Amino acid sequence: MWRNATLDHFTFGKREPGLPSTFKQRYFVCDTFWQPFADGSPGPIFFYFGNEANVELYLNNTGLMWENAPSFGALVVFAEHRYYGKSKPFSSKEIKNHMHFLTAEQAMADFAGLITELKVDRKARSSAVIGFGGSYGGMIGSWFRMKYPHLVDGVIAASAPIWSFLGEMPHVDATYFAKGTTYDASEAGGSNANCVPNVKRGWQLLKSFGATPEGRSTLHTSLRLCASAKLETETSVVGLRDWLASAWDYMAMGNFPYPSGYMLNGQGELPAYPVRVACNSLSNPESTDVELLEGMALAAGVFYNYSGDVPCFDFSSGPNPETTETADFWGYQYCTEMFQIFAKDGERDMFWEEPFNATAVSMGCEQQWGVTPRQLWATQEWGGRRIWAHSNIVFSNGLLDPWHGGGVLRDVADTVVALIIPEGAHHLDLMFSNPEDPPSVIEVRRQEREWMRIWIEEASRSRHGSDDQSIISLNLLSGGSVRDVDQLLRARKKGLARRLRSGLHREPSSCIAEPFEWLLDLIFNAFKELWISFDLAESPSQLEASTFRETSANSAL
Amino acid sequence: MWRNATLDHFTFGKREPGLPSTFKQRYFVCDTFWQPFADGSPGPIFFYFGNEANVELYLNNTGLMWENAPSFGALVVFAEHRYYGKSKPFSSKEIKNHMHFLTAEQAMADFAGLITELKVDRKARSSAVIGFGGSYGGMIGSWFRMKYPHLVDGVIAASAPIWSFLGEMPHVDATYFAKGTTYDASEAGGSNANCVPNVKRGWQLLKSFGATPEGRSTLHTSLRLCASAKLETETSVVGLRDWLASAWDYMAMGNFPYPSGYMLNGQGELPAYPVRVACNSLSNPESTDVELLEGMALAAGVFYNYSGDVPCFDFSSGPNPETTETADFWGYQYCTEMFQIFAKDGERDMFWEEPFNATAVSMGCEQQWGVTPRQLWATQEWGGRRIWAHSNIVFSNGLLDPWHGGGVLRDVADTVVALIIPEGAHHLDLMFSNPEDPPSVIEVRRQEREWMRIWIEEASRSRHGSDDQSIISLNLLSGGSVRDVDQLLRARKKGLARRLRSGLHREPSSCIAEPFEWLLDLIFNAFKELWISFDLAESPSQLEASTFRETSANSAL
Repeated sequence: MWRNATLDHFTFGKREPGLPSTFKQRYFVCDTFWQPFADGSPGPIFFYFGNEANVELYLNNTGLMWENAPSFGALVVFAEHRYYGKSKPFSSKEIKNHMHFLTAEQAMADFAGLITELKVDRKARSSAVIGFGGSYGGMIGSWFRMKYPHLVDGVIAASAPIWSFLGEMPHVDATYFAKGTTYDASEAGGSNANCVPNVKRGWQLLKSFGATPEGRSTLHTSLRLCASAKLETETSVVGLRDWLASAWDYMAMGNFPYPSGYMLNGQGELPAYPVRVACNSLSNPESTDVELLEGMALAAGVFYNYSGDVPCFDFSSGPNPETTETADFWGYQYCTEMFQIFAKDGERDMFWEEPFNATAVSMGCEQQWGVTPRQLWATQEWGGRRIWAHSNIVFSNGLLDPWHGGGVLRDVADTVVALIIPEGAHHLDLMFSNPEDPPSVIEVRRQEREWMRIWIEEASRSRHGSDDQSIISLNLLSGGSVRDVDQLLRARKKGLARRLRSGLHREPSSCIAEPFEWLLDLIFNAFKELWISFDLAESPSQLEASTFRETSANSAL
Repeated sequence: MWRNATLDHFTFGKREPGLPSTFKQRYFVCDTFWQPFADGSPGPIFFYFGNEANVELYLNNTGLMWENAPSFGALVVFAEHRYYGKSKPFSSKEIKNHMHFLTAEQAMADFAGLITELKVDRKARSSAVIGFGGSYGGMIGSWFRMKYPHLVDGVIAASAPIWSFLGEMPHVDATYFAKGTTYDASEAGGSNANCVPNVKRGWQLLKSFGATPEGRSTLHTSLRLCASAKLETETSVVGLRDWLASAWDYMAMGNFPYPSGYMLNGQGELPAYPVRVACNSLSNPESTDVELLEGMALAAGVFYNYSGDVPCFDFSSGPNPETTETADFWGYQYCTEMFQIFAKDGERDMFWEEPFNATAVSMGCEQQWGVTPRQLWATQEWGGRRIWAHSNIVFSNGLLDPWHGGGVLRDVADTVVALIIPEGAHHLDLMFSNPEDPPSVIEVRRQEREWMRIWIEEASRSRHGSDDQSIISLNLLSGGSVRDVDQLLRARKKGLARRLRSGLHREPSSCIAEPFEWLLDLIFNAFKELWISFDLAESPSQLEASTFRETSANSAL
């Protein structure tokens, strides 16, 4: 489904002539499982905060929402992040000239607008909203709870590295990501003991062979590079090195205990524990230089040649076009607000020494996008480690996920808590249940369910009071007595209890799987007319902002 | 003092060529009273969130901050709001072509930047920050605590009508303001019993006399209008009526128990309880039509002719140019984000029937500023009544202040509390103490002090842990042992305790009154060098973001 989102929430009026004032934001809604509570109040809303990709990726992978929606009777919503997937405010030709509107603040304001609209359209103003997000979506989700707690009652923020920015106190360990990847390739991380030393030796070979034309020719052959992939300078060897290292990073993020297509945007599958598989090609402690280079290529191939069909490697491209586009737009976000720190030291990690050079990175941003990162913005805007005033956020992190070192690994406040999955990769807890799941993720999912239950109960307590009060105030203002209001409330509850299922506002569904419901629908429709008559009698439509606008324009309340 | 504030916090790169990227924001700092705690940690910061006027107005009137700064040992800061006072991003000729950057979000981001900079520049990263604001400044202050709780530990929000917007649930009573003004003119509000009926009759006379040329001529004479103030149509009579009513609104806001210049931006003084004084001209239950009209003019004159020098009235202008400019820019804010509801019904208030007409108001905004108000934005962005997830906000309201009906009059959460001053006008609690203060405001100020104390203690508890941890982590990373760290911490505390006074970063002061401190300064300077040597030994400079930037650029932490 689509909605009109304001292009620029933070400017009023026409600032730049010719620009549209809105764009089409995509979202998916599944109301199959949505059920009112016993007292008739509307069921909860599960809301996914889209990240830097087509939101279908998250829709298809966020099992935590799908598996819990039925028992919670939840409406399931997946909202796409502006500039990604099909929610692009400009044509592909034009979009790079109008990147200004791609910020987390604008995206959060989109989500705020969508939640507000959903609550009005679905007559669910009092519904509890539980937010979900993984990775950047988890950052957005947790920040959304911090900035808009009136619109989301609690958030599961999985693998959200919100403490990976400059300006943190204490400072983040800049090598956290490289160390995290290294952990996956180590014996402690489940890989063979020779893998890390071999990988380290691999980078040295790359450097020494890369220094001469003959050496580069050997690299070209041993690493199975395509003829089109030129390796004529030491600079191009650096590009090759970074491309090889990227494979390790992605495999570590996707180091799940079963085959998964998540890291490939669903265009293929990585094997179970891909880092271990990659390390299998690097297990010989006594391989020759060429053998080791061939092993490096095979290891990278676990990621780049997931299909087994790639005849040779071209290190100028990723495994598929979609990841490239995503990386591109994320690059803009990195160059503006999301200035995360990355460094390697080659000692505590299996890479090489590469300190974080903020100046050089900034210059690159200036060149590519014409923007200078605001280095301390993220900490100033979202609080860094000083987030103890907030509530109702679960930060989950897997220790196989290299992002965990930039995440929240300890409880920050009574209800801002950290859940650790020692055997988990990138937001494993969000994925569908699998027979290969380690016990730790099963336990974390159980705790997350418990938090969801608590947040929904809390929201219900707040609801009683605020909503009933609004009916009363409306009715008293229009000349009713308190006695009328009592009757009205009783009737309303009876009427609502009859709804059984929420099909009143049924629209083309985006559910992953439609359970058979035609029978329930039949029953429901029989009650529907009755419900509508109750609806009119009680005039709950006055509770909706859309009609309220006219009401207030025409009469003093 | 001045700082460079980012003109557009929510856009990166050059969006519009030719625009400056920063502007000069003004703020005042007084460090006369600033004292470290016994353990050496820096004293608290009192921070005033500037409103829609020259911030000197608030600096000169916010006695609550000045009177408490000495006992709290607080640094006193008054920050000006962009577009007001001397913090204008553009020249007066240009500014109306660039109104886009005047939003509460941008202003809050300015304040966030200023607080961050102050904490770094003054080596006060761990200082508690207590925010203050009245009226719109109180709205900004309370929203700032909601959106940036990492930068302000608690906020006194005086007379902040954050519940005066469309979209509230339950709806705000749209006549709250008119009812509030009427209360001041009633016997319950301390005025004579005939005032309200006479004022009501006054508007009727205005209407009936206004219908004919002869009647309008009578109005012109009885109301002492200037020859230049033409009254040739019924429309102009409406203008006259609104101008007369405005006087009542301002007098009610400024209905203080002693003479005060606050409502006149310090350019003159209103008498004690100006509404009562105005009502004295309308106390006769049997006055003739002309006598009553003359009484209306005298009543309005309490505001418009505060000096007693005005020979005749011109209803096209306010009492002084500054209020006009302020009203102008506030008009833009009203026409974009601050779409508060105002209606009159002539029954529960002493005015006439005038429902809130959102459509008409919107059209006026479109005409004057080329913008359409986002009617539900305030509620969506700042949460309306759903603010129970927040903490550490005191909402104070005086019942003589017509704004109180749009404010928070009941506790919302454990530490989001409402304090009521039955005899108070517009943020009376922020003003300097006065012998005429009613006991209620004295008690409310006592409670506010108590909250300030609690927030500072809370911040101190958070400080221990975060700051010590940062020293430890820095030291361990650079090769120290835990034992070293212990010694370092002890030395640091000793060193800090020697500071006595915070003059280290003394700059031209903006204190209202400078106590004599030259002797303390002498003593302090003797210790200063000693302190600096401690400073270097302990390298707390690494704790500051300014140097951290370079550090992290050059080395992996």
